[in-house]
Amino acid sequence: MSATMEPNGPRIVTVFRSRLRPESGAEYHETAQRMLELARSMPGFVDFKAFVADDGERVSIVTFASMAAHRAWRDHPDHRAAQRKGRERFYASYDISVSEVVGESHFES
Amino acid sequence: MSATMEPNGPRIVTVFRSRLRPESGAEYHETAQRMLELARSMPGFVDFKAFVADDGERVSIVTFASMAAHRAWRDHPDHRAAQRKGRERFYASYDISVSEVVGESHFES
Repeated sequence: MSATMEPNGPRIVTVFRSRLRPESGAEYHETAQRMLELARSMPGFVDFKAFVADDGERVSIVTFASMAAHRAWRDHPDHRAAQRKGRERFYASYDISVSEVVGESHFES
Repeated sequence: MSATMEPNGPRIVTVFRSRLRPESGAEYHETAQRMLELARSMPGFVDFKAFVADDGERVSIVTFASMAAHRAWRDHPDHRAAQRKGRERFYASYDISVSEVVGESHFES
């Protein structure tokens, strides 16, 4: 079944694409795991998933139920500290986009 | 350097998350490759990238420069035919979200 619909309440999606430095290693994974747990613990959290491309580029897709909830997560002191550490030590580069969902569709065979 | 800014003109992002049926195989990959080429050939195309998660879930992230360009791609007859074939033969399930970018940030170490 396939259905196209307006999203069920607001959805704010962060698409975080990154390339790691070769030396980022275990500390990166430990920090990423803590940040996933932080996101999951926050009001308005909807979904988090991480993927990797053939060429090593990574993407995390993080969804919150309102812009206020998204901002509270973005600005959480532990998250801000992790962002700084990421720029200083983990990431060769990253691109973040924040967007508002305007349509959704689901299919299950 | 890190910079946060309004997007440089409108950006419409499609996040297409899917799980393949075990038997989808070569025909899926051939169709996916043709659909990537179709997207790249269309007016307003910005970016396409595919990623895979540890558990086998896939995501394609496709960006167009306007909602009109996004819709022309979504509704292209070859794309519609591929969507039908996908539901009939390739996908166990999928979730699509279409969203408008409200903020972007880039970092390069």
